Parts: sequence; structure tokens; C-alpha cells
Amino acid sequence: MATQGQVITCKAAVAWEPNKPLSIEDVQVAPPQAGEVRVKILYTALCHTDAYTWSGKDPEGLFPCILGHEAAGIVESVGEGVTNVQPGDHVIPCYQAECGECKFCKSGKTNLCGKVRSATGVGVMLSDRKSRFSINGKTIYHFMGTSTFSQYTVVHDVSVAKIDPAAPLDKVCLLGCGVPTGLGAVWNTAKVEPGSIVAVFGLGTVGLAVAEGAKSAGASRIIGIDIDSKKFDTAKNFGVTEFINPKEHDKPIQQVIVDLTDGGVDYSFECIGNVSVMRAALECCHKGWGTSVIVGVAASGQEISTRPFQLVTGRVWKGTAFGGFKSRSQVPWLVEKYLKKEIKVDEYITHNLTLGEINKAFDLMHEGGCLRCVLSTDA
Amino acid sequence: MATQGQVITCKAAVAWEPNKPLSIEDVQVAPPQAGEVRVKILYTALCHTDAYTWSGKDPEGLFPCILGHEAAGIVESVGEGVTNVQPGDHVIPCYQAECGECKFCKSGKTNLCGKVRSATGVGVMLSDRKSRFSINGKTIYHFMGTSTFSQYTVVHDVSVAKIDPAAPLDKVCLLGCGVPTGLGAVWNTAKVEPGSIVAVFGLGTVGLAVAEGAKSAGASRIIGIDIDSKKFDTAKNFGVTEFINPKEHDKPIQQVIVDLTDGGVDYSFECIGNVSVMRAALECCHKGWGTSVIVGVAASGQEISTRPFQLVTGRVWKGTAFGGFKSRSQVPWLVEKYLKKEIKVDEYITHNLTLGEINKAFDLMHEGGCLRCVLSTDA
Ligand SMILES: NC(=O)c1ccc[n+]([C@@H]2O[C@H](COP(=O)([O-])OP(=O)(O)OC[C@H]3O[C@@H](n4cnc5c(N)ncnc54)[C@H](O)[C@@H]3O)[C@@H](O)[C@H]2O)c1
Ligand SMILES: NC(=O)c1ccc[n+]([C@@H]2O[C@H](COP(=O)([O-])OP(=O)(O)OC[C@H]3O[C@@H](n4cnc5c(N)ncnc54)[C@H](O)[C@@H]3O)[C@@H](O)[C@H]2O)c1
Ligand SMILES: [Zn+2]
Ligand SMILES: [Zn+2]
Ligand SMILES: [Zn+2]
Ligand SMILES: [Zn+2]
Repeated sequence: MATQGQVITCKAAVAWEPNKPLSIEDVQVAPPQAGEVRVKILYTALCHTDAYTWSGKDPEGLFPCILGHEAAGIVESVGEGVTNVQPGDHVIPCYQAECGECKFCKSGKTNLCGKVRSATGVGVMLSDRKSRFSINGKTIYHFMGTSTFSQYTVVHDVSVAKIDPAAPLDKVCLLGCGVPTGLGAVWNTAKVEPGSIVAVFGLGTVGLAVAEGAKSAGASRIIGIDIDSKKFDTAKNFGVTEFINPKEHDKPIQQVIVDLTDGGVDYSFECIGNVSVMRAALECCHKGWGTSVIVGVAASGQEISTRPFQLVTGRVWKGTAFGGFKSRSQVPWLVEKYLKKEIKVDEYITHNLTLGEINKAFDLMHEGGCLRCVLSTDA
Repeated sequence: MATQGQVITCKAAVAWEPNKPLSIEDVQVAPPQAGEVRVKILYTALCHTDAYTWSGKDPEGLFPCILGHEAAGIVESVGEGVTNVQPGDHVIPCYQAECGECKFCKSGKTNLCGKVRSATGVGVMLSDRKSRFSINGKTIYHFMGTSTFSQYTVVHDVSVAKIDPAAPLDKVCLLGCGVPTGLGAVWNTAKVEPGSIVAVFGLGTVGLAVAEGAKSAGASRIIGIDIDSKKFDTAKNFGVTEFINPKEHDKPIQQVIVDLTDGGVDYSFECIGNVSVMRAALECCHKGWGTSVIVGVAASGQEISTRPFQLVTGRVWKGTAFGGFKSRSQVPWLVEKYLKKEIKVDEYITHNLTLGEINKAFDLMHEGGCLRCVLSTDA
């Protein structure tokens, strides 16, 4: 390849400082070092974590940086010692790494690999603790180990899943974050059984994926809760069987749900990031066994609370990151499920734009009508 | 039997009002109605729930009442339709009923039977919603469906476990509450695996039973935490391998434990009833899988809190009531384990007194040197 071993100059959306519109820049992307992979990103979607860090509220946020973590592309070149992918492979970058060797990976109990966390948490690569992005010599930080708002990015080899080349990259890019998070919250974290009654708080992409996962797990009732009644029509297509808008009730929403379900739901999922909704989601669970899973990400410093009696009487409080999926081993499996039409992906895509229109895409994300907006990175 | 079908007048310790010393009275105990069992209590221990209700802080507390829920005795007579026990059977009253037929019992997921809760929660019997205790016509309320601070009590048939008559009642009375709660928290609720690192907060009877349960489950390290360093010597005999007194550290106790354990414990148990310790117990758990079980009962109205990030990164928050044991089916099994010397019981008994000395027993409970005080009910 002509570019291998060379610095590539390409377009990327750079966040220079919090809350200022991203700007499309010519960025220099250094070649991958040992254990690294340079990926040509073809499609990237936007997710709330991008908006959260961009807003300046994320205390770990570093600027200037290149955001983006829900994407798909093709390997351009690999660094020394990389064996899991080779140039030309179709891949999905994974903000949740999977090395197979660390304490976390070996535990068999979690997907939270610790191998590259110390570097990705501070916007650099592990080998030399430096960034591969720069603009005329000025360092631009990585984000979540993915930085997909760029035509080229460099990721750790433990942070990239090789997928079936038959899969349309403009669709399966969504399997990089939101959709697996919702499906996995149901399948891996809660382990919903057939016949269960499920409550889903928040009917965005994550909440709809929870509903879809719950339907496929055989839930008998899937109660969707959202303050935006416009969400309800779409939600039916994802398996939601009943709707509640908390604004239409005077009683606390947990009480409304307990009354509707003869004592509470078997499983609940908070897919918003609101700490008072997290409490309601726990408290609407059935005494004795109801399990609540926190999926939404709350703003830094906020706290959840409840009476300990809620837990002593048998409710369980959990959370999930990337739905508990082991990224490199399971994202390819999710892609296969999509190709076999066993899981939806296309249905979450409400908008298609280009990388150059990324600020418009951020605006869309805050409007009710948008689930996922996919950007092509063509110039 | 001469007493069958008759009102029995016997001695009982009556709590006339909150915080006033109990007084030994001649109490009339009515014969058991359909589905009820009258039990001659031979031995009863004291537990914190008795002290809590007696203190007046329990909003559900009703006075006058007969407290007590950790006891053993012999069936004196049974009401119509009772088939699970007969006069002469050795039994342990169970504040946690087990009917085998309600939604809870049938779920297979919880021990929190709901059959008689509506009556036991308000100090009466289910059939006629009246008390079987009176003093010269004045109603004395039941407590937790057990009221064992009396020479005779009446309980629902779903609230009494028939045990091996070979078991010494002055010992196995402890299997009515504290010891099973600790063992079951480990075996049923947390399901501790061999090799696990365990933290136990509070080294009273419940905490020591947790340590014993963890040892028998094969835990590799059992870290005991107590603000009273005198507890440490005894705790070794129950399996505790390391001790921490939070008063000897400047750092938050969760940080001390995380540092000691390369990232946190696999399982933690709060056996105190202190909401800030409950938070520490959760936060000292290992990222990815650490599970914290709340066993202690906090004062009414108090709340637990933490950052949701603790759960999103894989910690699990649970609680337990009576250690998750199904009372009528499993208390007899615990008695057998005791008879086979597979679990300790005698070692928790630090004091023996009589029912007449019950106020002294309450005083002892608040002193550091007492684990369990067993009262004989002989006049
Ligand atoms: N744990 C993880 O690994 C992970 C991964 C991806 C996303 N997330 C988080 O999941 C959450 C949901 O993501 P999304 O993309 O679906 O978001 P979204 O904004 O598209 O959906 C949120 C929905 O919640 C509704 N809502 C807002 N406040 C509400 C309230 N008080 N009561 C009821 N409904 C309310 C909104 O109307 C909207 O429909 C975000 O917090 C995101 O950061 C977590
Ligand atoms: N969930 C249930 O079903 C159930 C059943 C029985 C008892 N309980 C509860 O379990 C708890 C323990 O019961 P117990 O009989 O073992 O009590 P206990 O009083 O004998 O033991 C409590 C221990 O905690 C220690 N302690 C107090 N404050 C502390 C702190 N801040 N940090 C560290 N240690 C501290 C004390 O020194 C003592 O050793 C009580 O709250 C009781 O109500 C619950
Ligand atoms: Zn995301
Ligand atoms: Zn790993
Ligand atoms: Zn007790
Ligand atoms: Zn029952």
C-alpha cells in the first residue's frame, strides 16, 4: 500500500474546546506502532458520550480531541506484532477493549478489559503514551481509544473487531455502541427469562434495543416509559407493548408501574442517565427478585439513592457497560445476527449526513425525532 | 393434653410502651385457631430487631406487645387443619413464613413468603385479624408473627419449622434468625465461590456467621472490619483472616480495602445497619464483578447512595432477609448441619439468663462482649 508506514493527512472533525462547534481540519495521522492498527473509517454515528464530553461536563475530557466511538471501517495498515487483523479487513473499533489476558478478561465475569485503559482514559496510545493525531505538530488527543470522527484513526489491536466483509458498513457501524449496549443489558447483564415483565425507561436507541432484546428473550410485557409521547409509535416496532408518559400521572412513576403489574416488574432498565429515574427504575421492581439495570450515564458527581429496605427485600441493583459484550469476540457475532436478520440495525438509523455536516448531526441528536444519525466520511 | 383447647395463663415479657423496661406479666394465651399452632417456648435469644422495635424507632412497632423472634420450643396444641406439626414436635418459630403456595413461594426466586405478612405486620393472626395474647381482656399484640418472649405463643402453621428432637433447644434457638442470616447471605444471596476475597463489615453474630459461611465456601481471604478491636480475637475462630479497624485509618475505609486487595473484594457484606458503611461496602468491591450484600437493617427513613458509575462498571448491590433461606424447608436442614458439627452455634452464645432477667439481657446486647444471650423461659 502506498500509505503504509507514512503519515496520512486526512479530514477529521476536531473539538478544539468544550461546547464550540467541531471544525473539519486536515489532520496528520501517524503510522501505527507496535500493537496498533490504522483504520480508514467509512461511517460513524454519534452517541451521547460524544456530546457529553464535547459539552465540557466530562471531568476526564481532554481538548483538543477527535471524538467518535460508534463506527466501521477498513484496516489500512498494522503495526509490528499485530496478528488479529490485516490491511483490507473490515472492522468495528471497540472503545471497550478485549485483550484476553488481563485480570478482567481472564475472570470470565466481565467485559471491562483493563489492558489499555490507562492510556485511552487520557487520550493517548499505550506504547509511548503519545497521540497519533496532530495538526502541524500540535497534538490532538484520542477519545475512548477510538476517535472515529476522522477519515483515518489509530486504535490498539485489542480494540478492533474483525467482521464479515459482507456486512454493510453504513449500517453495522451502529454495532459499535448503542445497539449492543441495549441488547446486552437484557441478555448478558439482566438475563431476562421468557414470560418476564420488563420496564424500559427512555425510548432512544439504547432503550429500543433493550425492548428488542427483551422481546427476543420472550418477555411477556414490555412497558416503555418516556416523557416524549412521540416515541411511542416507533417503540411498538421494537417490541414495546405498553406505554407510560410520567407527565400524565400525578403519582410517582414507580407507584404507577407497581399498580399496573401486581407488585412490580421482574426487570427494569434505565436508558436515560437521570439519577431520579434510576431510583424509580429500582423501586418499580417486584419485591423478592426484581432486578434493575442502570444503562444510562449520569452527569459526573451525581448520585443514586434509595432505602436499603428495597434491597433487603430482594431487589437487585446492577449496571452495564457495552451491554456486557466482550467486544472483539462478540461484535462479529452481532454482525452475523444482523446479516441473518435476527437483530435490527437499519431501523435505528433516522438520518444520514456527511462528516462535514457533523454539527448539524449534534443538533439533531438533541431533537426528539432522531435515533441514530450515520455520517459518511467521504470528503 | 390438659391445656389443649384451653386458654393458658403463663409468664411473658410485655413491652407496654417504647423504651420502658419490659415487665414480666401473667398473660392469657388463647388456643390456636384453624391454621395456627400454640408453642411452648423453652429458650429464646435476643436480636437487634427486638431492640429496634422496643426503642420506638420502628414506625411499624405496635404497643403493648410481646417481642422476640429467635427461639425454640415444643408444640403444645394445633388448630383445625394443621398437618405439618403435631403436639410434642420440637420446633423453631419462623418470622419469615413459607407457605409453598403464594406468588413468592412459587417463584423459586425468593424466601419472602407473602401468605401471612398482612397480619404479622400489624401484630395479629390472619384468620380473624385478632391477637391471641391478652391480659385480663386487654389485647397484647404479636410481633413478627413469633412473640417468643413468652412461655407460650401462637404462630401460623406456615411460620413454624419442625426440627430433629435430638437437637438441644437451648442452642438451636439461634437458628431462628442471626446465624442463618449470615450463612445464607453468603451461600444463597452472594453465592461466594472458592478462592474469593470477602469483606465483612461488623463482627457481631451476623458478621461472624458471614465469616463462617465464607470460610466454608472456600474464600481465600476474609477481611473483618469493626470499630471495636476487641471483636478481632473471637473473629479469628469464625474464619476471619485479616482485621481492619476503620478508626485506625485516615483514608476512607473503602480505599484502604481496595489498596489491600489489588482493586477490591469479590464480595462484601454489611452486617451493622449503617448506611454510610453500606456505601463503603459497595465501593470496596472489585470493578467488573464485586457484589455487595446488605444484611444490616438501617433505621427507618435512612437512605443509601453512591455514584451510578459504581454499578455501570460492574458492581452489584443486593440485600438479604433471613439469608434467603426458605424457613420451614431449610431451618431443619441447618439443625442437621449443626448436629453433624458442620456449622457452629454454641460459639455464638456468650450469656445465659432467664426470661425474668430480660432487661439485663437487653443491656448486655449493647455491650461489646455479648454476641447472643439465650434466655430460658422457666419461671
Ligand atoms: N452503559 C453504556 O455502556 C452506554 C452505552 C451507550 C449509551 N449509554 C447511555 O444510555 C443513555 C441513552 O442513550 P440513547 O442514545 O438511547 O439516548 P436518547 O437521548 O436517544 O434517549 C433518551 C430517551 O429518554 C427520554 N427521557 C429523558 N428524560 C426522561 C425522563 N425523566 N423520564 C422518561 N424518559 C425520559 C427522552 O425523551 C429520550 O427518548 C445515555 O445516557 C447514554 O449515555 C450508555
Ligand atoms: N437482613 C436480615 O434478615 C437480618 C437478620 C438479623 C439481623 N439483621 C441485622 O444485622 C445487623 C447485625 O446484627 P448483629 O446481631 O450481628 O449486631 P451486633 O450489634 O452484634 O454487631 C454489629 C457490629 O458492628 C460493629 N460496628 C458498629 N458500627 C460500626 C462501623 N461504623 N464500622 C464497623 N463496625 C461497626 C459493632 O462494633 C458490632 O461488633 C443488625 O442491623 C441487625 O438488625 C438483619
Ligand atoms: Zn456510545
Ligand atoms: Zn483484557
Ligand atoms: Zn433477628
Ligand atoms: Zn408463601
